[in-house]
Amino acid sequence: MANKKTKGTGPITARITVYPRPEILDPQGKAIASALTRLGFDGVEDVRAGKSFEIQLRAAATQDVEEVVRRMCKDLLVNSVVEDYSVELLDGEAKP
Amino acid sequence: MANKKTKGTGPITARITVYPRPEILDPQGKAIASALTRLGFDGVEDVRAGKSFEIQLRAAATQDVEEVVRRMCKDLLVNSVVEDYSVELLDGEAKP
Repeated sequence: MANKKTKGTGPITARITVYPRPEILDPQGKAIASALTRLGFDGVEDVRAGKSFEIQLRAAATQDVEEVVRRMCKDLLVNSVVEDYSVELLDGEAKP
Repeated sequence: MANKKTKGTGPITARITVYPRPEILDPQGKAIASALTRLGFDGVEDVRAGKSFEIQLRAAATQDVEEVVRRMCKDLLVNSVVEDYSVELLDGEAKP
């Protein structure tokens, strides 16, 4: 796990990972799983295909950054009917 | 960082994160950044939009799992001309 930092003044990178909920069909993941098997990769049991967002933000010292990022998810980035998400906070710039 | 496990027999979950290379324009990321600002989130400096794949696989004890996953990336999941990627290995099932 990355460093958790919930309040800060410097630039913070938040990484949001969004996946289809387990009960929702994931046709892209299924297609990737069968393509990998066809390419000769053995032992692939399941693939889930999701999205990742890296948000660099400068937060005020009084802000709870994780709270802000979760609001961004609810307001714009995640459709909570069909998607689950997780938030990681990394200090400074993240290297992918 | 998650636990690193490069050889194993049990089910392993590999998380692959794929982002556009820094020198490549990321119109989706730019659109999200301006949408967040418009929604009233201050301090958003940059957003990068990428993909995340979670692959559950059962590897033979002799296999170097990270090596296998990197080959999957090169053969199918990543276009290395325009994309960068990172691989994390998690034990067992990952919770998003």
